[in-house]
Amino acid sequence: MHVLEAQQFSREWLEGELFPLAERLAKGELVPERPLRDRRLFWLFYEPSTRTRVSFESAMALLGGSASGLEVSTHPEELVSERLEDRVRVLNDYEYDFILLRYHQEGGARRAAAVSRVPIINAGDGAGQHPTQALLDVFTMRQEIGRLDGLKVALVGDLTFERTTNSLAYLLARFDDLRLYLVSPETLRVRSDVREYLDEHDVRYQELRDLREVAGQLDVVYVTRAHTGRLQHALRFEPAEGFYAITREVMDLLPEHAIVMHPLPRGEELPPELDDDPRIACFRQARHGLAVRMALLCLLSPSGLAS
Amino acid sequence: MHVLEAQQFSREWLEGELFPLAERLAKGELVPERPLRDRRLFWLFYEPSTRTRVSFESAMALLGGSASGLEVSTHPEELVSERLEDRVRVLNDYEYDFILLRYHQEGGARRAAAVSRVPIINAGDGAGQHPTQALLDVFTMRQEIGRLDGLKVALVGDLTFERTTNSLAYLLARFDDLRLYLVSPETLRVRSDVREYLDEHDVRYQELRDLREVAGQLDVVYVTRAHTGRLQHALRFEPAEGFYAITREVMDLLPEHAIVMHPLPRGEELPPELDDDPRIACFRQARHGLAVRMALLCLLSPSGLAS
Amino acid sequence: MHVLEAQQFSREWLEGELFPLAERLAKGELVPERPLRDRRLFWLFYEPSTRTRVSFESAMALLGGSASGLEVSTHPEELVSERLEDRVRVLNDYEYDFILLRYHQEGGARRAAAVSRVPIINAGDGAGQHPTQALLDVFTMRQEIGRLDGLKVALVGDLTFERTTNSLAYLLARFDDLRLYLVSPETLRVRSDVREYLDEHDVRYQELRDLREVAGQLDVVYVTRAHTGRLQHALRFEPAEGFYAITREVMDLLPEHAIVMHPLPRGEELPPELDDDPRIACFRQARHGLAVRMALLCLLSPSGLAS
Repeated sequence: MHVLEAQQFSREWLEGELFPLAERLAKGELVPERPLRDRRLFWLFYEPSTRTRVSFESAMALLGGSASGLEVSTHPEELVSERLEDRVRVLNDYEYDFILLRYHQEGGARRAAAVSRVPIINAGDGAGQHPTQALLDVFTMRQEIGRLDGLKVALVGDLTFERTTNSLAYLLARFDDLRLYLVSPETLRVRSDVREYLDEHDVRYQELRDLREVAGQLDVVYVTRAHTGRLQHALRFEPAEGFYAITREVMDLLPEHAIVMHPLPRGEELPPELDDDPRIACFRQARHGLAVRMALLCLLSPSGLAS
Repeated sequence: MHVLEAQQFSREWLEGELFPLAERLAKGELVPERPLRDRRLFWLFYEPSTRTRVSFESAMALLGGSASGLEVSTHPEELVSERLEDRVRVLNDYEYDFILLRYHQEGGARRAAAVSRVPIINAGDGAGQHPTQALLDVFTMRQEIGRLDGLKVALVGDLTFERTTNSLAYLLARFDDLRLYLVSPETLRVRSDVREYLDEHDVRYQELRDLREVAGQLDVVYVTRAHTGRLQHALRFEPAEGFYAITREVMDLLPEHAIVMHPLPRGEELPPELDDDPRIACFRQARHGLAVRMALLCLLSPSGLAS
Repeated sequence: MHVLEAQQFSREWLEGELFPLAERLAKGELVPERPLRDRRLFWLFYEPSTRTRVSFESAMALLGGSASGLEVSTHPEELVSERLEDRVRVLNDYEYDFILLRYHQEGGARRAAAVSRVPIINAGDGAGQHPTQALLDVFTMRQEIGRLDGLKVALVGDLTFERTTNSLAYLLARFDDLRLYLVSPETLRVRSDVREYLDEHDVRYQELRDLREVAGQLDVVYVTRAHTGRLQHALRFEPAEGFYAITREVMDLLPEHAIVMHPLPRGEELPPELDDDPRIACFRQARHGLAVRMALLCLLSPSGLAS
């Protein structure tokens, strides 16, 4: 099994396999048995990433395995120096058990999967997807809110170039009675493939320009930061005033039980001055992420878990 | 417990805990039990370092643990990309057991410690301190000279921007009857905070311009190299002629029992031609450093050592 | 024992020790005993390398050990920052068990060996040698063709600056009835030290300009790529038309039992369109390389193998 896009996961697998296992791992169960003893993950990154790399490294280490990797420059000369497919085949020959791939263009994970005998895990492919981020995001909602049906979720910020919100929208569509609020500047609206998918799956969603209009009825606010590297042609938006950012005013509007999520690293859209508010969940989200990635690795590993 | 500055260590802790343990570890005792099995250290470096990283990696590995890390560029764009405090909180969430931090500005380790549940180890904070270097330096003197009271020590070179000599002066002040010779160019004199600390603790010290004036009466010469990166506004000094460098003439003046130390990497101030002289102790110092860092990690780890 | 150059290996050692052990390791024997448990390799690279690093990392990990390392920039300022010999001595002090060295100039491995108590493994020294590549190349021929005597081998491409073909020519000369075809542009002929060695050892070789002239009678075609980084003063050659490249025409000429080898990464001289042909052996070669490097590490380790 490869992990290529959020759409590949069924609700049954999430609720019957991944999330229960993540919950047990978060409690420290199974970890002492080191279910991935001697398993090795290779991270192959064509774009820099620290959080994804470090969380997978931690997941492997806590389960008894190890990780090493390579950052490939996307400088034209280096890129041309070796085909993605060749790299992946050699990593197979070197007997790695998992390949975690971040590629600078959409479709990279799929190309890698076509030649790999071991699981390819898509850790981001350009402006495409980042499916393991969506898995941990949905797991965070489940742990923090207590349910996944009937959620009211706002995705806020750059919805054109931010792959985490793409994957998250696809994955949330698996659950019932979802209400999605897509809050972005006009120039950074959610991509049409996501909108078509939501339409096909009868998800009720609404696009708007000001988070404050809906803040009072939300369960989850998911804020993102503009990845300026990928945003060369789009306008950098202004996070001020609560349109697309968390401010004291937004916090006052938000219900008591709601949470604010952010994939980190954050910018001005989520000021540290608000961190004392227990509804700011971004660091708990990082911790949930570790549990989800540990669970995913166990499930990808053929004999990794005799659960 | 965090390791932030040399002043935090009492003589009792050094002589009753750290040094005896380092001595046992250097003899190979305790190592086979792998007291840090499955413990993980993360090195977070805002300035490059290889010796500090590699010695801590070795210390962790020899004790049964592991290390991984990240070098953060201090390019303004990258620096601004994530707050130090956020990085440290996430590393806590990923269940690392130690965070080894090198920061480009004074006070970095203290900021990290304020938000960390796991020990922060200051591996250098700008022109501030490098306390684990001082621990290994003092341990080296103890092992090589046989005592720590009544030592005559010359600190030589750039005493303004070199953090190792700051930390070492603070730590040596813990011991009795110290005589300190601060040998530096006029423009690179020891910092006023160090001088005030020495005054307050009644340490006899003398500032001078020529190592040869005192070489004949020393137990230890501690030579350093100008870190040109941090020396942008100061004059590069001339190591020639024995003023601030080890030459054949200086070696001839030095007593038989004395040692020459250097934190490495070395420049022209300690020419390899002299390495055959057994008083050149810089490589034994590196080896003592490994033992001290192993001991420190054991003592920082709550249950790491049921000694 | 250090691994410095291909000439140091006797036929007896290859056929009696290294290759049989590599064969057993490739079958999965001995690996479960983790014969290099707790052994640590340090890779010190003055030129970038991923394949060599990653295959040694994998070899160490599969045998129960670990690897870490450092890439040293050859920017003049950084180079001057620390002598190779000092780095090697400190790595000895940090108790690494193997040092894998890639150096940007010929003779680096020999300098390192002069000051090291632990094995130095030459992973390439400028345009000099890459002896572990030659070991795996010869092992590949043995496994794929079934014998090492009486082979007809073409070395194709840049034979002046490509160190893999240097080491391979030296090592192949150990075997009987070798016929070597050196196929290169006039400006990139094999180095004179290699030719002299072949002459002294009565190896029959022939220099030519067009691979197609001899393709029909070969057992092995060994194609290489011009490392443009090392090729600043030499002309980049044109791989087109089958002179120095594998084309459909060359494949049609090659005997059924022959193989095409390449140290990878490949350029246009070995187009992926031909990968379906089972005679293209470059990925099997990578896999054989892992087994050979595992075997080499076991044999270098004093008590690493109670075979």
